[in-house]
Amino acid sequence: MAVTKRSNMRFCLFTAFTPGGPVGAPWYHPGARDFDYLNLDHQTKLAQALEGAFFDAIFWADFSGVHDTYKNSYATSVREAVQFPLGDPLILAGALAGATENLGLVFSANVIQDHPYSFSRRIATLDHLTRGRVGWNVVTSYQKSAWLNLGFDSVANHAERYGRGQEFLDVVRQLLTESWDDAAVVRDVDRRVYADPELVRPIEHSGERFRVPGIGVTEPSPQRMPVVFVAGSSDDGREFSARNAEAAFITARNPDGAAAWLKDMTGRLSNYGRTRDELLAMQYVSMIVASTEEEAKRKSEELDEYLSSEAALAFTSSTAGVDMSEIELDRPLGDFGNDFAQLGIFKAMAESAKDKTWTFRDVVTRIGSNRFIGTPEQIADEIEKWREAGVDGINLSSLDGVEGTFNFIEHAVPVLQKRGLMQTEYTEGTLRDKLFRR
Amino acid sequence: MAVTKRSNMRFCLFTAFTPGGPVGAPWYHPGARDFDYLNLDHQTKLAQALEGAFFDAIFWADFSGVHDTYKNSYATSVREAVQFPLGDPLILAGALAGATENLGLVFSANVIQDHPYSFSRRIATLDHLTRGRVGWNVVTSYQKSAWLNLGFDSVANHAERYGRGQEFLDVVRQLLTESWDDAAVVRDVDRRVYADPELVRPIEHSGERFRVPGIGVTEPSPQRMPVVFVAGSSDDGREFSARNAEAAFITARNPDGAAAWLKDMTGRLSNYGRTRDELLAMQYVSMIVASTEEEAKRKSEELDEYLSSEAALAFTSSTAGVDMSEIELDRPLGDFGNDFAQLGIFKAMAESAKDKTWTFRDVVTRIGSNRFIGTPEQIADEIEKWREAGVDGINLSSLDGVEGTFNFIEHAVPVLQKRGLMQTEYTEGTLRDKLFRR
Repeated sequence: MAVTKRSNMRFCLFTAFTPGGPVGAPWYHPGARDFDYLNLDHQTKLAQALEGAFFDAIFWADFSGVHDTYKNSYATSVREAVQFPLGDPLILAGALAGATENLGLVFSANVIQDHPYSFSRRIATLDHLTRGRVGWNVVTSYQKSAWLNLGFDSVANHAERYGRGQEFLDVVRQLLTESWDDAAVVRDVDRRVYADPELVRPIEHSGERFRVPGIGVTEPSPQRMPVVFVAGSSDDGREFSARNAEAAFITARNPDGAAAWLKDMTGRLSNYGRTRDELLAMQYVSMIVASTEEEAKRKSEELDEYLSSEAALAFTSSTAGVDMSEIELDRPLGDFGNDFAQLGIFKAMAESAKDKTWTFRDVVTRIGSNRFIGTPEQIADEIEKWREAGVDGINLSSLDGVEGTFNFIEHAVPVLQKRGLMQTEYTEGTLRDKLFRR
Repeated sequence: MAVTKRSNMRFCLFTAFTPGGPVGAPWYHPGARDFDYLNLDHQTKLAQALEGAFFDAIFWADFSGVHDTYKNSYATSVREAVQFPLGDPLILAGALAGATENLGLVFSANVIQDHPYSFSRRIATLDHLTRGRVGWNVVTSYQKSAWLNLGFDSVANHAERYGRGQEFLDVVRQLLTESWDDAAVVRDVDRRVYADPELVRPIEHSGERFRVPGIGVTEPSPQRMPVVFVAGSSDDGREFSARNAEAAFITARNPDGAAAWLKDMTGRLSNYGRTRDELLAMQYVSMIVASTEEEAKRKSEELDEYLSSEAALAFTSSTAGVDMSEIELDRPLGDFGNDFAQLGIFKAMAESAKDKTWTFRDVVTRIGSNRFIGTPEQIADEIEKWREAGVDGINLSSLDGVEGTFNFIEHAVPVLQKRGLMQTEYTEGTLRDKLFRR
């Protein structure tokens, strides 16, 4: 079978600018504990290793506050470093600009922590300094502490969150793509004209939440807009994706689930005059690779021993907006006598995993964790199935620390590349060009 | 005379993340036009050259909007690149973190473009990634377009601007210095305790403008607070400096003016229980150096030919909040028949430069420009006078582009170092340690 240029998968490293890295990864795991997230040398080494392996991007999830729904306290999140404390991934993306040349730098940023006017300048600056290599994962934030500390009275409801997200995105897009014409910047030394004011115009935005009458303050950057990523899975989230996303993160339980998501999304896209080709579907996966299946399983079991159900409950409580301190973790998931079973997170799991007898503990501790365990060849076989289901890329999480990432790079990447599942060179141009293999 | 460690002067390069660099510097000057401010390689080369010459810091002035008071239009500022367009210096500071080791990275950031909760995370992240080398110039913003685009109805008055500045700074300080104890971060792998929640506390801030009940989201950074710079010269501005600044920018016309400023400030400092030793006074100066005095003068005259009174009026109108398009530039400054003469900027100039017959044009085009012109030895003599007046450092602006900076580094720095006016090694530690020569 000829491997066309489009047929390989995109690979992002999914992580967060926190002590343990991605959601669910314990900072005290032996593979994680030597990595100091605040040490730029460490971050540079990781980014350069990803670039050396032709990863498309590094992706940082993000929160603005602490997860304090569980037991109505921040204590667990502080003690166990549950996606906390948090560096600002925008700053880290900038700090890696000069140390990388091709790697995409994709940061999450919610629409409540900044004013879109200030935010647009920041991301345009990043796009300039990275020569067009940034992506923005638009997040609406469900986190109570974030809303309260940013001056709101409470977390807005779902519809308002996405409404705000849409207006925020619209303001940013107008400032970055409509205020300055391509030809506006002249740099004519003889006439002493830097830019032609006739080709710059005020956006005159006046919406429900923001009023921005003026012009953008940055000149056009290589990509203008960073590549827009969206991760929402609710109905509102899917609509937001269909309207705005260039890359969507999905967390299907299996390839059939991904195919169903893609089918649904294709219909939604057409409502906005868009086609399936304009959206990359990136499946979330965590991987444990070893030279034998037994060894991989042993590593996975070892990881399980490091997982903390307290940490998981702190995170899940925040996500669900419900304090789960009273949950009976060892009851089976199908046990609808338990009130918590009515929460979307468990209902969805109960439906998609009918064949298994999962307990609440299984769901909570392995939240969102579609774990691929095996030899490089087995991992490749598994990814092949997702490619056949139509998925465009893998959002890879390493739950056993950066060691797991380096291990994946060393052992799995060569096999994936040999089988045409992973690129062996970068496409020229911006992150958008690279991701869409133009 | 023994040169004590404290007796050398601090040197900052004063610039801005804009096409021409600092205020008043034409982007089309031959010394500036090859420098692409958005090219990180250029910025890195400049920063590394400054570090090689043992400059204390690079300092970026900043604005959030366009200067559009003049002729009630942004046209002049766009056309002539009058401190416009603007990259975000916070992002640039981050991008230079890995390329420098000792250079201070001091960004201006106003108190209207961000929420202090978000801003505090951003600057703590910078402080971590630079290993404690950041400074923050606290700006209150007088710029109409900035206020309007950030959702305000108009520019707040002076008192409210400084009131907001104080509250903003207070919130940031509480989040960064009071929320986490020094001993809070434990990283105890065996007990699986990352941080001790007993040593982390909510700031419970509830003020006129901001309400931040919760805890800081960053762990303690090397400096906790970036070094606080303030540049205000009004009465409100001086009070703000006396209360908050660790370094103050002054724009005295001569050493006597600086001495008077210092005397005034010493009194004000004592009202806040502070001493003169806790504040560094940094004098703004632009320099033109050449191997002979004649050559330096020729370069200065050449620079004058490049200056644009249109650009200067666009900037000065914005600063003064008055459209100066009707000003008669060639009338003498003492001519109080002209309404514009009543503006503070001209009155102050008329008073301090009684010995000269300056026109409005002179003031407008050379705004804030205390120009030192001469051989390296003459420059050193001049700086000596300011040191004797008690000034702690020089905030150096190059109006003839980065070439002027490189020229200064090549020719003036060795002389200044030989005469004990400029350091020849960095003090160890954070930017605060370095600046105060601890």
